[in-house]
Amino acid sequence: MLRGLSSAGLGALESQEQLIRLAGKYGFQAVDLDAAALVRQYGAEGARALLAENGVVIGSIGLSVEWRTTEEAFLKGLEELSAVAASARELGCTRCCTYILPSTDHKTAHFMVLATRRLRTCAQILGAYGISLGLEFVGPHHLRTRWSNPFIWTVEETLDWISCIGEPNVGLLYDSYHWYTNGLNVNDIVKLSPDQIIHVHLNDAPDVPVEEALDNGRLYPGEGVIDLAGFLKALHEIGYRGPVTQEILSAETPAGTPEELAQRSKAGYDKVFSAAGLMA
Amino acid sequence: MLRGLSSAGLGALESQEQLIRLAGKYGFQAVDLDAAALVRQYGAEGARALLAENGVVIGSIGLSVEWRTTEEAFLKGLEELSAVAASARELGCTRCCTYILPSTDHKTAHFMVLATRRLRTCAQILGAYGISLGLEFVGPHHLRTRWSNPFIWTVEETLDWISCIGEPNVGLLYDSYHWYTNGLNVNDIVKLSPDQIIHVHLNDAPDVPVEEALDNGRLYPGEGVIDLAGFLKALHEIGYRGPVTQEILSAETPAGTPEELAQRSKAGYDKVFSAAGLMA
Amino acid sequence: MLRGLSSAGLGALESQEQLIRLAGKYGFQAVDLDAAALVRQYGAEGARALLAENGVVIGSIGLSVEWRTTEEAFLKGLEELSAVAASARELGCTRCCTYILPSTDHKTAHFMVLATRRLRTCAQILGAYGISLGLEFVGPHHLRTRWSNPFIWTVEETLDWISCIGEPNVGLLYDSYHWYTNGLNVNDIVKLSPDQIIHVHLNDAPDVPVEEALDNGRLYPGEGVIDLAGFLKALHEIGYRGPVTQEILSAETPAGTPEELAQRSKAGYDKVFSAAGLMA
Amino acid sequence: MLRGLSSAGLGALESQEQLIRLAGKYGFQAVDLDAAALVRQYGAEGARALLAENGVVIGSIGLSVEWRTTEEAFLKGLEELSAVAASARELGCTRCCTYILPSTDHKTAHFMVLATRRLRTCAQILGAYGISLGLEFVGPHHLRTRWSNPFIWTVEETLDWISCIGEPNVGLLYDSYHWYTNGLNVNDIVKLSPDQIIHVHLNDAPDVPVEEALDNGRLYPGEGVIDLAGFLKALHEIGYRGPVTQEILSAETPAGTPEELAQRSKAGYDKVFSAAGLMA
Repeated sequence: MLRGLSSAGLGALESQEQLIRLAGKYGFQAVDLDAAALVRQYGAEGARALLAENGVVIGSIGLSVEWRTTEEAFLKGLEELSAVAASARELGCTRCCTYILPSTDHKTAHFMVLATRRLRTCAQILGAYGISLGLEFVGPHHLRTRWSNPFIWTVEETLDWISCIGEPNVGLLYDSYHWYTNGLNVNDIVKLSPDQIIHVHLNDAPDVPVEEALDNGRLYPGEGVIDLAGFLKALHEIGYRGPVTQEILSAETPAGTPEELAQRSKAGYDKVFSAAGLMA
Repeated sequence: MLRGLSSAGLGALESQEQLIRLAGKYGFQAVDLDAAALVRQYGAEGARALLAENGVVIGSIGLSVEWRTTEEAFLKGLEELSAVAASARELGCTRCCTYILPSTDHKTAHFMVLATRRLRTCAQILGAYGISLGLEFVGPHHLRTRWSNPFIWTVEETLDWISCIGEPNVGLLYDSYHWYTNGLNVNDIVKLSPDQIIHVHLNDAPDVPVEEALDNGRLYPGEGVIDLAGFLKALHEIGYRGPVTQEILSAETPAGTPEELAQRSKAGYDKVFSAAGLMA
Repeated sequence: MLRGLSSAGLGALESQEQLIRLAGKYGFQAVDLDAAALVRQYGAEGARALLAENGVVIGSIGLSVEWRTTEEAFLKGLEELSAVAASARELGCTRCCTYILPSTDHKTAHFMVLATRRLRTCAQILGAYGISLGLEFVGPHHLRTRWSNPFIWTVEETLDWISCIGEPNVGLLYDSYHWYTNGLNVNDIVKLSPDQIIHVHLNDAPDVPVEEALDNGRLYPGEGVIDLAGFLKALHEIGYRGPVTQEILSAETPAGTPEELAQRSKAGYDKVFSAAGLMA
Repeated sequence: MLRGLSSAGLGALESQEQLIRLAGKYGFQAVDLDAAALVRQYGAEGARALLAENGVVIGSIGLSVEWRTTEEAFLKGLEELSAVAASARELGCTRCCTYILPSTDHKTAHFMVLATRRLRTCAQILGAYGISLGLEFVGPHHLRTRWSNPFIWTVEETLDWISCIGEPNVGLLYDSYHWYTNGLNVNDIVKLSPDQIIHVHLNDAPDVPVEEALDNGRLYPGEGVIDLAGFLKALHEIGYRGPVTQEILSAETPAGTPEELAQRSKAGYDKVFSAAGLMA
């Protein structure tokens, strides 16, 4: 598995380049970032060189298309997706991810119809460029009633949705925080096959009742109560070998410089990977 | 357009053969029935002869697969679908229909996922045999709250669902009763193209507030308040040339012999087709 | 049906605007052109106004993506397709077409695999914007052996390919020249349904043995030997109501000014539409 | 990986039960057989017990549908596929395989269209029952010119075809004999991901020029010249953990009783698995 960093948890980063340099410096092998922006800034060759000299690959880009609101917004975003996918492909990136909010103010059935169709179109375009689409189920309980109607949040529902979308390049984004807040354990991971998992996020949770763990109340790996060693071991056991990326969503920007926070992230990763018996 | 009869509205029919004979006798050109049962009883050749000598074709068969409950029930039903489709094909039938209940006791989003996947599989199998799948939106207001969660019932939602299912052979079953109970008018038909409509049902409604029209409170064409002349004219105008089949769902079996009820159906069809300027 | 003009057959046009103006002036209701270029030049609003004031709509755009050569060329072209489709949609255009060469220097089976996948992706993107993809079978005999290996050129093969591509928005571009060079007659049209036909081309052929009719040896409608009255009548009979666009491919630019050639086109259309009993 | 046996190479077996018993007795963990026939004979429960008491699972069933000839033959076979898939599912089998002949007497492009559509439909039905479809590329050179027109036989072409079919449950059946006759080596395996491989066949080849290795001239593993240790190591390295099934196609039935041949198969498997460092 590849240790991965995203900007979430590194404080006030000045640039994507800083993220890449910090990742390389602190032993991470992957970064989640905006590949198209990187290509715009450095050119494809320059971006590849920047990644290579820091020893990192791109773990995943985020899905830039707005699939949750109006058809016009969706189609507007879709205009850019091919070019975004082409940029990602130029940099060797094979993953693109988006998250599923567990409730909605839309009429549920109709929204599911629209969301299915839209995400299928996104997957089809991404697939042409060799890129997979990871769907992130979202566990925190407070979000299930944040909007009027319940949507979906369990692994089983999400796998059924992936099957319904029906494209070969769609799978799960498996985040330890959502695994935990869904009340899952290692057995729930072990029964999966690695090709069902496109991408992995690694985050920890505070010592509060699981129902009270907030989506933006995440902790650095190893600083909380989630059995991250078990999480990582189970993923390794089933054969998952992709990136495992930190994404610390928090109400306030964490204190410390990006450098300090990268160091802190490294310490957390060392701790939980070591506990999982996965130190290289 | 082809005038069509189904067993719904003909009282205590003794057999499918009786339906076919009555349809032929009273000037109908199509019947909705169970093609596989007809082939089992008469053989393909015998069934074709029976239809031919009465001057009728099969308008549509019903979708025999249970797609609304458990996965096991679905897969069980799916085992028969290819053979059912093959029977229909042997008799020249190119349509298969199912209806969409406007509310559900299932969790809405997850049910939509399962229903989409299941209906797509059905459409794929039917498509191999040259058969289209018609989805009937259901308008009566009382059914929208009959089960815990609203599902879908409008034409727009149903067309979006058809697009989401994504197979070329899926379209609407357009029933005048649901057109009426959805508060639609001829303009809503005129903006469709004929290939969006797989099949048509013709029924009338009692003179009660539209919100109180019950799904099983239907009247014979021409005996109620729906503008069936406008309905038929609009369908003809956009180029629809398929069957228009009566389906009188009622709380009690209508009084009279099948023969009398077929005669009454003919009178109703004559009245509304004539009002629409569509008498051959 | 809408009479349509393309630039092919109008000589040395100065601009797309000229095509639009000539179409309007000589009684055509549709033009095939490059919608994205029109939007770039006039803006969406300006382009819509230009079309409206000349009383024409866009019949079809051409598929801008190179699907016949390398994967890189395909992906490069695909980057633009969403924006191209969005422009077409802004101008109310719902058709995009490409032609199928009847032989190939590629290994046939593998090329069919790649072509199927690529055209499906194009259809999926176009479909998101409400645009259909028309595939033009190409009949002239000399092209069947122009490259090393035979590909496909009959209507039946093309319909099977459309079914194999499997998207609801794919159908035929039916060109009278290919109908003629394939040795087809009105019965071959009458057995189609209108939704199988996305777009129609109208051209005439010289009085040479059909095997010798060259792809770039086309004549103006009514100036050759094809039964264009029968062709048009059959299309009208099955319910086709879309554009019927002239596309005079010729070895040399036809003599005369665009104005004169538009006038000549009008005369040809008048002649064959009149013979078909289709003068408004 | 699971060692697997099929009837091919075991001589004159009396029954599927004998295959199961011999597999269990000689240390194989999987058998390729006709699951539907097994269920018909023993019932689902009886068949499961028979498999369990011999310590074997079903590796794969063969695709029973005729997809290579007429549409009628295809549709006829399709009628049974759902029930066949249901039987396989009842016995825990998740794989179904078919092979691709490298040449054809059909018109190549059209045949590819039909084959793609038909195999997609098969994959869709199998997928509903949780079963994957493995496509076996076929390497022996003599078959490339056995029929009039070349079709496909390389891994790359087959992967492109799988992508063209477009269903998530389709992948390769990777046979060591076809790997060898295609001139491939371990690097060609290492670049695959395990989810691209549905099933594996293990066979050896005689010491003749590779161009002369006949499809029905296969040897027992370890008795020929193929680097089966490298083959197995590479598959294990990429994470493949499914069945590896012997399928000795030969011009004449091999000498010896089924018991002797099973013993010989075991010796061969021991030899090559041991050489690969894969003895449990």
